[in-house]
Amino acid sequence: MKLIDFGVREDEKKYIQEWSKDNDVEVKIVTDLLTPETVKMAQGFDGIVAYQQLPYDEKIFDAMNEYGIHVISLRNVGVDNVPFEALKRNNIRLTNVPSYSPEAIAEYSVTGLMALLRNMKHMIRKVDQHDFRWVPDIGRELNQLTVGVAGTGRIGRAAIKIYQGFGAKVIAFDKFHNPEIDKEGLYVDSLDTLLKESDVVTLHIPSMGKGHTVINKDSISEMKDNAIVVNTARGDLINTKDLYEAVANGKLYGAVMDVYENEVGIFNTDLTDAEFSDQLLEKVIQSPRFILTPHIAFYTTKAVKNMATISLNSMMSELTKGTSENEINLEK
Amino acid sequence: MKLIDFGVREDEKKYIQEWSKDNDVEVKIVTDLLTPETVKMAQGFDGIVAYQQLPYDEKIFDAMNEYGIHVISLRNVGVDNVPFEALKRNNIRLTNVPSYSPEAIAEYSVTGLMALLRNMKHMIRKVDQHDFRWVPDIGRELNQLTVGVAGTGRIGRAAIKIYQGFGAKVIAFDKFHNPEIDKEGLYVDSLDTLLKESDVVTLHIPSMGKGHTVINKDSISEMKDNAIVVNTARGDLINTKDLYEAVANGKLYGAVMDVYENEVGIFNTDLTDAEFSDQLLEKVIQSPRFILTPHIAFYTTKAVKNMATISLNSMMSELTKGTSENEINLEK
Repeated sequence: MKLIDFGVREDEKKYIQEWSKDNDVEVKIVTDLLTPETVKMAQGFDGIVAYQQLPYDEKIFDAMNEYGIHVISLRNVGVDNVPFEALKRNNIRLTNVPSYSPEAIAEYSVTGLMALLRNMKHMIRKVDQHDFRWVPDIGRELNQLTVGVAGTGRIGRAAIKIYQGFGAKVIAFDKFHNPEIDKEGLYVDSLDTLLKESDVVTLHIPSMGKGHTVINKDSISEMKDNAIVVNTARGDLINTKDLYEAVANGKLYGAVMDVYENEVGIFNTDLTDAEFSDQLLEKVIQSPRFILTPHIAFYTTKAVKNMATISLNSMMSELTKGTSENEINLEK
Repeated sequence: MKLIDFGVREDEKKYIQEWSKDNDVEVKIVTDLLTPETVKMAQGFDGIVAYQQLPYDEKIFDAMNEYGIHVISLRNVGVDNVPFEALKRNNIRLTNVPSYSPEAIAEYSVTGLMALLRNMKHMIRKVDQHDFRWVPDIGRELNQLTVGVAGTGRIGRAAIKIYQGFGAKVIAFDKFHNPEIDKEGLYVDSLDTLLKESDVVTLHIPSMGKGHTVINKDSISEMKDNAIVVNTARGDLINTKDLYEAVANGKLYGAVMDVYENEVGIFNTDLTDAEFSDQLLEKVIQSPRFILTPHIAFYTTKAVKNMATISLNSMMSELTKGTSENEINLEK
């Protein structure tokens, strides 16, 4: 069995090499993304592993069929940049990594929140300038606050455990009740109630589609004064302009934004020397009340290892058994 | 009853005013520190409340005696800047606030650690420059690490609860075993063992006196590669030069320093326009691997409220009952 792994970052290499050694399977590591050009490198291999945010071109899959390759395993969750029709007509099976580390994202959402509660961004900037004064950066303690967790999937539940360790009061909302969270009595009856009663609203829900925001002018007006919004989920859950204004005018305290509605083309990119045209994002970056990071919540050694190895395990299962637990149903 | 409160910061005022109203006791608020000059303002008052890091001059207490004032209540823990002999010869009783919020300090030590594990300082600086790349700032998850808690007093125990919420493995050392922590089986048999087995060493112990450091070249050599040191306790527990070098040469990953052996005259001071002569601290500030903050772990709304009100409650108890639970034994 010979596999080829596309779009591999430096930090992924060692996990792929370890897997290759442990499983005695040759894996060619390629740093290029998977395109109609680079797919040529896959000739002679049995399966393709890949990860990228750019769309996968249909021609890639026509070429795979030509080379006799009928499985592609993605190292990430999302498959919305893959043209299913092209897979089907070329008889190609697709796998993803449905969960690589819910704890990575849960821990990061708490990290961002704590950094904001202790005004870490302002403090780092002040200390860099030799301003060592405390005022005005008095902090708040998490054990004094009510945290509203929107979404009680794997990530939301991991976050709840952490918040409970801090002694925070936790309330939760989800359309689908998790039995464990239900037994603890954490659910409130609506998202509205969650927004009204929380000092911190943390989002762990999927996108509801462009234009369908959870945090916007209307919902913010229902929230507590001085409340905080944490978003490590999807940028389009928030109307960023409304959120920015609510923080600027003092209605809300601040926000943690690891995702942003217009992040594609900006996040995980070096724009140091580029013209920066997103004026709203620029204001968010400059504000000490926004902890703005470029979609790094998932980015831990544990998660990266899982993305690298679970995708390869799925590929091995597909090639030896004809299926795997992470195979995507292309008819859905 | 008329009280006077010295060295009051802006953020303390509202809590003192609330206490004054709730208890129907006049409290004069003074922003000046307590000196042989400013003590004159205390004439006609029944008790003095104060907080400062500078030493209290003996003459203050001679003046108090002259004015018939025989109680001074400090808004903080430490009483080592008060000359006990001067109190005794003037028949003055002293109270402190032995605990205002162990959770404030415990939460901050976790905040600093999480910020370091996720490379928050580097990330904030990068994003400020429009560098949105992930690499090289891959994070580590706390749930994968062993946290060694040195000192299991109120702060250490509050920290342990938080770390357990994250799912970290916790080990602890203290000369005096806390029964609860003992029952959980967290104690290791020596500080050496703690240093050897921990990915994170977090200090919650008192100063052992100048020159008696816990973290120094020798002890660092016993620690795990890539380990982290967290100090929100006392600056003189660490040989900062040795710690800096261990991080710079890659033995240790980094450190959280909310205290510093030479912090007096620097922390809580604006040195923006001053010549900055501490070259070691400058290197620490510049390093992305040091989360350096100016002794702010205690600085939360809850802690500040407790400092303001507990000191006033002690004073009231001293003046009405002749004693209080926070009275300091001057013979020790």
